[in-house]
Amino acid sequence: MAVGEPLLLDSLAQRDEQLKREEGVTELSPMRLRMEKFTKEQQREIVQALEKLDGKKFRIDEWQRKEGGGGITCVLQDGNVFEKAGVGVSVVYGTLPKPAILKMRANHKNIADEDNIPDSLEFFAAGLSLVVHPKNPMAPTVHLNYRYFETTKPDGSPGAWWFGGGSDLTPSYLFDEDAIQFHKTLKEVCDKHDKEYYPRFKKWCDEYFYNKHRGEARGIGGIFFDDLDETVSDKENTFAFISDALKSFIPTYIPIVSKRKDMPFTEKEKEWQQIRRGKYVEFNLVHDRGTAFGLNTPGARVESILMSLPLTASWKYMYEPEPNSREARLVEVLRNPKEWV
Amino acid sequence: MAVGEPLLLDSLAQRDEQLKREEGVTELSPMRLRMEKFTKEQQREIVQALEKLDGKKFRIDEWQRKEGGGGITCVLQDGNVFEKAGVGVSVVYGTLPKPAILKMRANHKNIADEDNIPDSLEFFAAGLSLVVHPKNPMAPTVHLNYRYFETTKPDGSPGAWWFGGGSDLTPSYLFDEDAIQFHKTLKEVCDKHDKEYYPRFKKWCDEYFYNKHRGEARGIGGIFFDDLDETVSDKENTFAFISDALKSFIPTYIPIVSKRKDMPFTEKEKEWQQIRRGKYVEFNLVHDRGTAFGLNTPGARVESILMSLPLTASWKYMYEPEPNSREARLVEVLRNPKEWV
Repeated sequence: MAVGEPLLLDSLAQRDEQLKREEGVTELSPMRLRMEKFTKEQQREIVQALEKLDGKKFRIDEWQRKEGGGGITCVLQDGNVFEKAGVGVSVVYGTLPKPAILKMRANHKNIADEDNIPDSLEFFAAGLSLVVHPKNPMAPTVHLNYRYFETTKPDGSPGAWWFGGGSDLTPSYLFDEDAIQFHKTLKEVCDKHDKEYYPRFKKWCDEYFYNKHRGEARGIGGIFFDDLDETVSDKENTFAFISDALKSFIPTYIPIVSKRKDMPFTEKEKEWQQIRRGKYVEFNLVHDRGTAFGLNTPGARVESILMSLPLTASWKYMYEPEPNSREARLVEVLRNPKEWV
Repeated sequence: MAVGEPLLLDSLAQRDEQLKREEGVTELSPMRLRMEKFTKEQQREIVQALEKLDGKKFRIDEWQRKEGGGGITCVLQDGNVFEKAGVGVSVVYGTLPKPAILKMRANHKNIADEDNIPDSLEFFAAGLSLVVHPKNPMAPTVHLNYRYFETTKPDGSPGAWWFGGGSDLTPSYLFDEDAIQFHKTLKEVCDKHDKEYYPRFKKWCDEYFYNKHRGEARGIGGIFFDDLDETVSDKENTFAFISDALKSFIPTYIPIVSKRKDMPFTEKEKEWQQIRRGKYVEFNLVHDRGTAFGLNTPGARVESILMSLPLTASWKYMYEPEPNSREARLVEVLRNPKEWV
């Protein structure tokens, strides 16, 4: 190789490190670096907003993956308002084996040419994930995740890319006004970008966050989507949508939890929250594809993946809410998802 | 069809019901009926022994599967000694679809002739499962399961059969004498039938009850085996082995929990137990094939499957035992399974 020729054999991780060092991250940088920068900024803002409400500080762990990439995991545990709140950013540079390429090609033709599927491909994934479990059973658990995925062709040129994500609310006690407020904000954010997004992503959310073995939804939904690629919209517009959706988290959730965090509750109501927490654990460990993907990724940081689990949960045999109780109404809604806006 | 001809079109479940009604269950009955009778007898004895130790009664639920079969689920919850104890018997008459037949044929050639694989086959499964979570963190959790599986060929003649099962101990605090006692009894039972059983099944247990994503065993093991069929021993001898193994439960576990149930413990030790309970939940929901099979069986009684989950569990981010502590020693042993006898 002649001096001055680009080092094509360098890994994507190395090339990105060099880019960041030499040019910083601007609107002209590759989406990989912009998404990493944006999620890290948002992580700081969200951590600050939750700390302000709670009064207790997050523990902040920065970690590296020896295969490339790394992340920042922030956890606030046993706080004043929050039982457990985890806000994590992860950046992964990795290699897709041929079976994974073939599988992904079903939805993303650009990943490789049909007549030339390579044995492996470099990929990049970056995202922010958060789960917040408040102490007060009247305050709902919330989950949010926005991620960007990209592959590189063997010659180093861009392959496929897509965004995914969403946000959903899981109350133990249902306040219709909270559910309406949560969905309303998400709908506004969606409508700003595409009127078809909200109905489509709301339905997708109800279908995805479904605890099949229990015959009920995990919570009262929100939005969820995967595979947002060039067949839906261009990269710039999709990033703008993702950015708006992520930025809407603080103004949506903080008011809801502020209203609920000091409400009185009984021991029995706390017990119900613990039962619902158990079902949350069931969904995450049995059905959630993201958790399964994480736990099966070599070198994955397990404690960052499982920060989504609540501090405490309970399983009581045959525990059923009393007929016509508030608990029974929640279950009714979980079995028959509602249109909130 | 002429009068007097056997009703071959009747289901296996119906034929077995008729047999039980008309002839009762004796040593000459099909293994299906003998296994059902035996596990139900053992269930009663185990329930009585646990009730005697606890002072509180089990809730006993008898249930039917509309597809054939049913079971008895016994649960003692929030007792004096036991946080949660579940002892269940289930009897399932069902139909295996072709993909399941092809998969099972890898280990059981008798399931169907190679040149004549049917689209579906009737099967029978009966077994006893138990999980006992004591309150005192010094007293170990125990799990046991013994099961019998049989298929019927399309003409109604017997197809393949096999037994599976085992028993394993999961302490939060390790008392070597308990681990030795537990393994010693299992080894004696195994040795009585085949000197090769214990080393083989002990290893199988260490490999099966492995929380892969945590890099540690669920507990200190015991024995585990599947696929005990005619290639290993005949049906009568295998049933005799299963019977001895199941009957050894009370004399092994009751003395261990009796010794530990009133030991003093600190709040910190209770906390450690709750952390360990969390890892137990992780194994059962992420890795346990029996739980996955159950949750994916149409019409399954979810509360009977998930009775294995503890009453309470906890997940603390990055919780690590102090170096050289008793907690650290347990983790060390879970990472490097020991030979106890």
